[in-house]
Parts: sequence; C-alpha cells; structure tokens
Amino acid sequence: MLKHYLLTPGPTPVPPKALLAMASPVIHHRSLEFSQILAEVKEGLKYLFQTRNDVLIFAATGTGAMEGAVANTLSPGDKALVVRGGKFGERWAEICKAYGIETINLDIEWGRCIRPEQILEYLRKYNGIKVVFIQAHETSTGVKFPVKEIGELIKDKDAILVVDAISALGAMELLVDQWNLDVVVAGSQKALMLPPGLSFVSISERGWKWVERSRLPKYYFDFKKEAEALKRDQGAYTSAVSLIMGLLENLRYIKEQGLDNIIEHHRRLSQATKSAIKAMGLNLFTKESPSEALTAVEAPAGINGQDIVRLLREEHGIMIAGGQGRLKGKIFRISHMGYIDKNEIIAVISALEAVLNKFGYPVKKGAGVRVVQEILFD
Amino acid sequence: MLKHYLLTPGPTPVPPKALLAMASPVIHHRSLEFSQILAEVKEGLKYLFQTRNDVLIFAATGTGAMEGAVANTLSPGDKALVVRGGKFGERWAEICKAYGIETINLDIEWGRCIRPEQILEYLRKYNGIKVVFIQAHETSTGVKFPVKEIGELIKDKDAILVVDAISALGAMELLVDQWNLDVVVAGSQKALMLPPGLSFVSISERGWKWVERSRLPKYYFDFKKEAEALKRDQGAYTSAVSLIMGLLENLRYIKEQGLDNIIEHHRRLSQATKSAIKAMGLNLFTKESPSEALTAVEAPAGINGQDIVRLLREEHGIMIAGGQGRLKGKIFRISHMGYIDKNEIIAVISALEAVLNKFGYPVKKGAGVRVVQEILFD
Repeated sequence: MLKHYLLTPGPTPVPPKALLAMASPVIHHRSLEFSQILAEVKEGLKYLFQTRNDVLIFAATGTGAMEGAVANTLSPGDKALVVRGGKFGERWAEICKAYGIETINLDIEWGRCIRPEQILEYLRKYNGIKVVFIQAHETSTGVKFPVKEIGELIKDKDAILVVDAISALGAMELLVDQWNLDVVVAGSQKALMLPPGLSFVSISERGWKWVERSRLPKYYFDFKKEAEALKRDQGAYTSAVSLIMGLLENLRYIKEQGLDNIIEHHRRLSQATKSAIKAMGLNLFTKESPSEALTAVEAPAGINGQDIVRLLREEHGIMIAGGQGRLKGKIFRISHMGYIDKNEIIAVISALEAVLNKFGYPVKKGAGVRVVQEILFD
Repeated sequence: MLKHYLLTPGPTPVPPKALLAMASPVIHHRSLEFSQILAEVKEGLKYLFQTRNDVLIFAATGTGAMEGAVANTLSPGDKALVVRGGKFGERWAEICKAYGIETINLDIEWGRCIRPEQILEYLRKYNGIKVVFIQAHETSTGVKFPVKEIGELIKDKDAILVVDAISALGAMELLVDQWNLDVVVAGSQKALMLPPGLSFVSISERGWKWVERSRLPKYYFDFKKEAEALKRDQGAYTSAVSLIMGLLENLRYIKEQGLDNIIEHHRRLSQATKSAIKAMGLNLFTKESPSEALTAVEAPAGINGQDIVRLLREEHGIMIAGGQGRLKGKIFRISHMGYIDKNEIIAVISALEAVLNKFGYPVKKGAGVRVVQEILFD
C-alpha cells in the first residue's frame, strides 16, 4: 500500500476543513450568505497580502491573473521591463509579447539573483519603461528576488513594479504595502493550500493610476470592474463559490496560526531540507538567494532528475517536481509550500536516500534524515 | 428549520458523488493519474457536445471562455455580428467592443426570438462580417434561439457561428457537429451540475481556420495552446484538478442516464412549470421559443419580482432568480437546469402559491401544484 504525498510547488495539499467546505452544497453567488463569506475573505486576503487595499479574486489559475496584470497596466506602444531568470520570467515576456508590448528583457542566469541596481540601470538605459515585471520567487529555480529593495528603488520613478508572488505569498515574508509593490499576483494552489482555480491581485494607489490609463483590451480580467463589484462584496461575474468557501477556511487558519508563524514554519522546513541535501553530498541548484518555498537540487552526475522524481512517486508515493524548460532532467525540486509538516520532510529525505542508493549514488541511510531531525525535532 | 433549494440558472445543485470527488485530496496536474482522468473527461465532453472534436477546458467561468471565443476568432479591423436579445447578447457586444472589433448589433426585443433569415439579411447588408455571435439560450429572457437553422444558413458563407451555450448545453438538444455550430461555449455551473469555475469550448474544422488567422491578443485563453496540450491529455497551464474530478463523475452520470433522457427530463420539468404558472393565472415572460432550461414569469401588476424572489428564499429556503438588467423587478425565473427533480418543482410552485397570496395576488392553494402532479407524476 502506498499513500500519497504532494510536495510539489503547486498544487499543494489541502487541509481537511477546506476540503469539507468545498464539498458543501453550492450556494448562489448573488446571495447574502455568499456576500458575507466574501466580506470575511476580503479581510483575510488583506491580512495575507499585508495591504490596506482590496485584493481582487479571479476564477482562473495564476497565469490568468498574470495576463490581467499586463492587460490592465499597459497600453499599445508602451514599453515594459521583464526580469527573466526562469520559466515564469519567460511567461511575463510571452504575455507582453502576445499583447504587442515592447519588451526589454533583463536576463539573469537561471539559479542566480538580480542586483536591485540592475533595474535602475535598465530604467536609465531604456527610456520610457512603464512597468517592471518580476517574480518574488522564481518557482523554476528556487531563487527569491529582492522585490523589497526594487520596490524601494522605483517607488518614486515613473514606472510601477508588478510582482508574480504566486509561489511566494504565504511561504515567505512579503509586505505588499510596506515594500511598495504596486501589483501583486497570487494563486490558490500554492501556500494558500487550495486546489487550483483561483488567482488574486492586489493593486497599490500608484498602480491604480496605471490601470486607469491602460488601453489594452480586457474583459474577464478587468481590474476596475472587479474592484467595483468587490466593494459590494461580489464578483463581477459568477464567482467560484466552492473554492471561495475553502479559501475562507484557509484564511481563518492562517489568521489563527499567525502569518509570522507560518513564514517561520516555512523557513525551518526549508533550512532542514537544504541542510539534509548538503549532508547527502548533493548540490543545491539555487546559487544565490534561495527561497523558503522549495529546495532545488542538482541531479548527481549520470542520474536523470526525472528518474529520481519518478522513483520517488512509484516506490514511495511521494510527488516532487522535476526541472522545467531547459532544466528538465537536470534538477529536482522539493516543495515545502503550504500544508506540509516536518514528518513529510523526514519522509521525502528518507525516500530520497533510498532512491539515490538505488541509482548508484551512495548515501549512508539516515544521513539526511538525521539532519532534518536535528533541525526540526528540537 | 429551512433547508436550501437552488433553482437558479447557475449555479445549480451538485450531485453528492461530484461533491465527494471534489473533496478528494488534490492530485498533481502533470501526473499520470490526472492525465487518465482528463482522457476520460475528454471523451465525456465529446459525447455531451455531440462532437468529434476535442473540447477545450478552461479554469474560468463562462465569461472567460466567451472572451476566448472573441479573441481567438477575430483580428484587428474585423467586423462581427452580435444578436442582442438579452443580457448575455449584450455581453458578446461588450467583449467585442473591448477588443476594438467593429460590432453590428442585431437587436431583438427581450423575450422575443430571432428569425434565422434575419442573419442572412444582416450578412448581406453589412459586407465582410467574419463572425456571428449568438446565445443558444438567452438566460436573461428564457428564449431559445434557432441556432440549428442559423448554422445551416451560414455553413457555406464566409462567416462562422459562435454560440454561447452556457445555460443550454445538457438542458436542451444541441448537436454541435450536426448543426454546424463552429464555436460553442459552455460552463460548469449550469446543466453540468458543478460549482462555477470551469468553462468549455468546442471548435469546428471551419472554426479552426478562423482561429489560425486570428491576430487579437490572447494568452490564458489561447485555443491553439490548449488544444495542443489537450492532445497530450493535459492543460496548457495548471488545471483546476478538483473541479475536473467532479466533472468526471457528472459526465459518467450523464452517460449512464443517456443524454436524450436528460434532455427529455428537462423538457418535462419545463412543461410542468410553465403549465402550472399559467394555471395560476400568471403570464410567461418568454413570448416565443421558450427554453427547457428555465421558466421566466412576469411579476403580477403591483408586485415587485425581487420581493417574490426574496420571500421564497426567506420563508421557504428556495432560491430562484430575479430579472437582470432592464428586467430587474419585472420578472422572476425558475430554473429547471441540471440536478433538479420533480419534487423540487412541486416545492417551488407550492411555495410560490403561498408567496403570491401573501402579496395579495389570489391563487387557490394547490392550483399550480395539481398541474405539476398531473404532468410529472403519471
């Protein structure tokens, strides 16, 4: 018998209370009952995003809200700067291209971090950049980008900062208002501990100025229309009521636990996993600014990362992620995002020891596990 | 104690098996297990749509797929014809406008039906129309439009037919291939008996030619990218795995019951409801071509339709829909769409008798109920 463990950077496991809430009979999206739920969800999202502004909710996965962030902040002929340090940076550039935006790419070696000053250099070099697109955490490489510092640098420039925090929000510190992050996108299936299907967007006061003058086509992801509806505790179109009922449970859970404690929990799981990986003689792929959301590991010479992922799943029931795009086969990624506990970290490291030995890479049984125990079981 | 009954034209009640499937632990969207689910869902959707072609699935509500239908079939400078006979016809026009499409509106009085020849007249009068947008069923008025006849008329013209079947599919006959419907949009929260959050699109061979040459911006709702991914039994981005697990159960249910039987069930519920309404001395709002998906009723003189909706909910636990847009307060709509049985039709008619009497409109107790019994309990 194999039970199943989901340690992938989305989707992540869903707490039983949220699963049960989502199995409740469907209620109408224009009912008072649903508006009351949405009112509480609205407050919960403000807490999670650490913002005073309403956070928009879309029935769509993260890419939909990313597209919304492009379509709602830019106009034909506008210029954008995209930090491309992985697959999701490439996605920003692809969306901008689809909308005919002149896109300047600031390419970072995958696994490395940007220096905040590079943004300023580009803003100076390429005149008239209206929006800077970046990831708070590049899920494909495990690199955390310094969005706080970048927000500080461009808050008085004539450009706004749009941050994909899909795999960052709730897994690492992210103070939207205090850090001057103008537009921040998040998704349900990451540290928010829900099934895929919801995405979220916060918009700063400065960000709204860009939205006001944007002239790219949009309808479903129209920020202004959603914001107006949300003021009345409704969605502009039919809301994904079941997912939002699950969301309410998870936002309550996050509030009960306290956001700081949840961030600290992720930090500890991340530290334990990374230390165990090193104790097993493996190399972390993330060379700079590793995130607390996942641990990206180089596959040992001669072993395909996809095979490690496959054997963990087939023989141990543990689902982790392989490499994406150009990193396929070269790395594997253990997520500690969302509803994951210390016993699951023990399980994945213990299984990884066995799998590596099977592939001929020698690891002493318990070498990694002991490190996890030392860090997490004190 | 009040139990809750959902007789609204979306969302509709969800069968317990689907609720439980959606409460299952989340699986990964790139797993073999999920691909196997998607492969079966793909076949089930082909049966439901009565098409040979793959049906695309989007994590979004119906409006998202409607936007996709506009963005994927048209190019800048193109001309479109929109049949506007209610709120959702207006939505096609709004989306076209948002994308800068030159839109010719064919306005039909709300509650009335179009004559198929009117489409030909417009195609002749306004040269170069590329796409005709229409509803199979205009949810706001209860009118069923003759999309079969229109499909036949334009199948050899240089224009395609795009049909919003969001509240029609599974509630009334709709033979996508046989009727030459080029692009057909559907949603999860109607006769598909799921929570809101999924939408669907079928595309004919002729439709794909339009998609191939379309140059409007799109990313999340990119039909070509989704079709390619679906060939591999995947979604292009993160799939809404939980909703799709519920979808699998409902598609199995539809297949077991047989689509013809399900359509016949809707026809009978609709006939019973409409007959009961007339027996109560009320007027149907839908003057021509009434749909089997819902019954739209004129509020009696001096009574606000919204008050009827409110009292049914507050005193009887029954949620029906009021009028939308310019019909607000003037009508109310009883849906028989999806997972609704004859006892619920008895309940809503019986409660309606009581509510009308309360508002001073005299109805003999049981006058409507008896008609429902005669039609449905034989």
